[in-house]
Amino acid sequence: MTAAGAGNFFEDFRAGQTLHHAPPRTLTGGDQALYTALYGARFATQSSVEFARGLGFPSMPIDDLLVFHTVFGKTVPEVSLNAIANLGYADCRFVAPVYAGDTLSARTEVLGSRENANRESGIVYVRSTGFNQRGEEVLTFARWVMVRKRSKDAAVPSAIVPELPRAIGADALRLPAKTALNRAELRQTGGKRFFDDYAKGDRLDHADGTTVEEAEHMMATRLYHNTARVHFNAHTERLGRFGKRIVYGGHVISIARALSYNGLENALFVAGINAGRHVAPCFAGDTVYAWSEIVDKAPAATHADWGFLRLRTVAAKDRACADFPDKAGDTYDPAVILDLDYWVAVPRG
Amino acid sequence: MTAAGAGNFFEDFRAGQTLHHAPPRTLTGGDQALYTALYGARFATQSSVEFARGLGFPSMPIDDLLVFHTVFGKTVPEVSLNAIANLGYADCRFVAPVYAGDTLSARTEVLGSRENANRESGIVYVRSTGFNQRGEEVLTFARWVMVRKRSKDAAVPSAIVPELPRAIGADALRLPAKTALNRAELRQTGGKRFFDDYAKGDRLDHADGTTVEEAEHMMATRLYHNTARVHFNAHTERLGRFGKRIVYGGHVISIARALSYNGLENALFVAGINAGRHVAPCFAGDTVYAWSEIVDKAPAATHADWGFLRLRTVAAKDRACADFPDKAGDTYDPAVILDLDYWVAVPRG
Amino acid sequence: MTAAGAGNFFEDFRAGQTLHHAPPRTLTGGDQALYTALYGARFATQSSVEFARGLGFPSMPIDDLLVFHTVFGKTVPEVSLNAIANLGYADCRFVAPVYAGDTLSARTEVLGSRENANRESGIVYVRSTGFNQRGEEVLTFARWVMVRKRSKDAAVPSAIVPELPRAIGADALRLPAKTALNRAELRQTGGKRFFDDYAKGDRLDHADGTTVEEAEHMMATRLYHNTARVHFNAHTERLGRFGKRIVYGGHVISIARALSYNGLENALFVAGINAGRHVAPCFAGDTVYAWSEIVDKAPAATHADWGFLRLRTVAAKDRACADFPDKAGDTYDPAVILDLDYWVAVPRG
Repeated sequence: MTAAGAGNFFEDFRAGQTLHHAPPRTLTGGDQALYTALYGARFATQSSVEFARGLGFPSMPIDDLLVFHTVFGKTVPEVSLNAIANLGYADCRFVAPVYAGDTLSARTEVLGSRENANRESGIVYVRSTGFNQRGEEVLTFARWVMVRKRSKDAAVPSAIVPELPRAIGADALRLPAKTALNRAELRQTGGKRFFDDYAKGDRLDHADGTTVEEAEHMMATRLYHNTARVHFNAHTERLGRFGKRIVYGGHVISIARALSYNGLENALFVAGINAGRHVAPCFAGDTVYAWSEIVDKAPAATHADWGFLRLRTVAAKDRACADFPDKAGDTYDPAVILDLDYWVAVPRG
Repeated sequence: MTAAGAGNFFEDFRAGQTLHHAPPRTLTGGDQALYTALYGARFATQSSVEFARGLGFPSMPIDDLLVFHTVFGKTVPEVSLNAIANLGYADCRFVAPVYAGDTLSARTEVLGSRENANRESGIVYVRSTGFNQRGEEVLTFARWVMVRKRSKDAAVPSAIVPELPRAIGADALRLPAKTALNRAELRQTGGKRFFDDYAKGDRLDHADGTTVEEAEHMMATRLYHNTARVHFNAHTERLGRFGKRIVYGGHVISIARALSYNGLENALFVAGINAGRHVAPCFAGDTVYAWSEIVDKAPAATHADWGFLRLRTVAAKDRACADFPDKAGDTYDPAVILDLDYWVAVPRG
Repeated sequence: MTAAGAGNFFEDFRAGQTLHHAPPRTLTGGDQALYTALYGARFATQSSVEFARGLGFPSMPIDDLLVFHTVFGKTVPEVSLNAIANLGYADCRFVAPVYAGDTLSARTEVLGSRENANRESGIVYVRSTGFNQRGEEVLTFARWVMVRKRSKDAAVPSAIVPELPRAIGADALRLPAKTALNRAELRQTGGKRFFDDYAKGDRLDHADGTTVEEAEHMMATRLYHNTARVHFNAHTERLGRFGKRIVYGGHVISIARALSYNGLENALFVAGINAGRHVAPCFAGDTVYAWSEIVDKAPAATHADWGFLRLRTVAAKDRACADFPDKAGDTYDPAVILDLDYWVAVPRG
């Protein structure tokens, strides 16, 4: 492993290695307030402590994606500081809720790696896990990243490409302890459609668009302790691939999730992410829109009052989504920037 | 009422209807910190928990205008998503203080409506009320809004235009329970002028100016869960009335209130808003200045140590206010953007 | 002293005067969250409540520089509202930690003053001190400022130039009560170098650069209740010395401290500031880099597990610091904007 601040290069990774990330990060109500100001998310679970208690949480849980970004951010210095691209996610499960005052730490296991034919870079596969201050797992996810080599001639390990699930089974998704929901309370979510009102194949245009500002995506990315240089440094990025700072892909995920409230008001929390692809980069000045498709649905085995919807949420830039810009084969509509496949928990109304 | 996300149109409103807004919103110290960072308000009541306790509050109250914006924001999806203009406010009373941890919900009664002669839009009159988690009223206000019709031919109800008070009587304004104030503590406010030092007709230039940024007004407006599209979407607003995003009018109110600290340091809280007019739109890049006039004053009937000043605060853009830019008859100085008539509570020194 | 909002001019200051600043300011976890979002500081002490407790703090202390900026901001209306330049700092000692919920107040003693030869301005020397709600001193620092005269002909006091220490002795620096540190916990800081791993004369490039945005520096400066006009008003600054808003010098100090985590991960808190010079102004759009030199080191007399490093951290704009841009005699590299001389506390590993 290389010096602090320089990050690891492709030849530094070995399957089986454990990387410890630092420092731990205590999330507070202040972090949640910033998250609200940055994205405008309106899902009732993260908006009202009274509503959250009604669902069976002891207090208002921190937004699932704020937890994801915090754990992800922790992993950047050791995993992706020298990354060329963040290629994909798999098997991301939100195992336990996180509350204001909880302290998250993270570690990563290297699952495998494979050098590229040009010998200048390679793909590294890792699983990162976040823990609270009691050592309980709160989040786990796999991702794969294209990482530069320090030296083209460096020796590299034999290729190991791990098998990763294409989707999480609904039975592996978490729910709050309480099973019976209060109908009166459910009228406070702002949505009238519940689990049974959605059908596989339904498509929803989330209607609103929001324009990204440099100050916003940088404040968000710093909040997550994510230090990837391409997000912060206009001076060097002027000479980079795009001539300007690139928005952290997770920022776009959070924008899309916030937009999805229009039509998915009862998607009360994110239960897992099956796969995600940052199809194209996002820059300050872009206006992000989103639409979703119901890919699958599964009643919760253990909770009669809950079900899971598997969604594909597609975000596009500078293009409204009323006609659902998509892909044909492997070719995406040029406006598409994100294609996210994930599970949300929705009450049965 | 129409589908979630699409908002109501003029023909959807009927006098007597009650609209329930969602989701509830728990305000925290994090929201208050953001409010401070966005406006730089320095009134001692919302700056020091020790000072607030000295006034008789159990802890530091959330800024009155943050409460107003939160309740207002809640009402947007059902009241003003399809508004052409927010025409006015009346009888806005801050009934009970709100503290960090309180959860606000809101509902709106439709008071009346009147179609415009062109039959493409009309004016809707509503009263919105905010409640805390115990169901206690914290804020109530009337407003009227010009709203588009979905269809020019739609049937509309007969015109009903409610009578609204032009000003709140001082005896309807709230004060903290404690009546005797501590002179030593009052020296901590930063101001030397108290209730008895102001005279009707006094004019005060608030001196400072502050330039509005896109990231700031959007973060503020999202913090308030206000989803009105014109504030967020540069892509569509490029083709809109002004060619760019419009700043939420409440953002200008909060800037003007923060600027008014210079000269009104002891205006320790806002007790009520009699009327308000957004004379012209504000855009990112504009620099906002403000001045105030003492329109009326009333010692508090129940609290010997307090009085109320009725203020008219006028905000202007890209123009210093040392010479009090104003209106002549119905014609405003072209720099004026806000004309706000409200009551503040001021100790008798 | 002049009217509220107008500030003091050179001829208003007299050695021996005490200036009381207002209003007090309660710092919360929300303020700390904003500080994190604005700078991305990752030092473990201000990131994890569990880690802070392990060091012997009862809870997570507010970032030292947030305390500094808050006390500094309080002093602006009475000390530097009419300043032409903030010339220097001396003998800044962090006397006691500050925690979320503490309320800071500030007062300033005028140490002396000296009129400039042109009789249009002069230098004022002050010592400002911050107190918590129990009246305990938390921070003290001297600074000197060039302040305009209201009138060239005004009478001024005889020149008094105070003696100020060029550096704080290491024995005057504070440490947490606990003396024995936990080795396992120290692995969570993200750094492998401890006190004994640094040598006098070592130079460290902090590698990253971060671009400053108008919305960010204004939100920061308002968070500190700092009202100096040059930071906020594009309308008047268009006609000012630089044609644009100037970034608060303390914002650059906080950026440099956050960047210094790369290489100084175990500099767990700032113990004192010996001297600081804002060599050149910073503007939105500038990208800030930094490097540090170990100027001195001193094991703590009272705590076997701690030592103090005296650092010189130099920040530059739009120029990477791999080759340590510096000064030759009194002439700085044109990219340098900050030269800060301060003590940090570092565990002995």
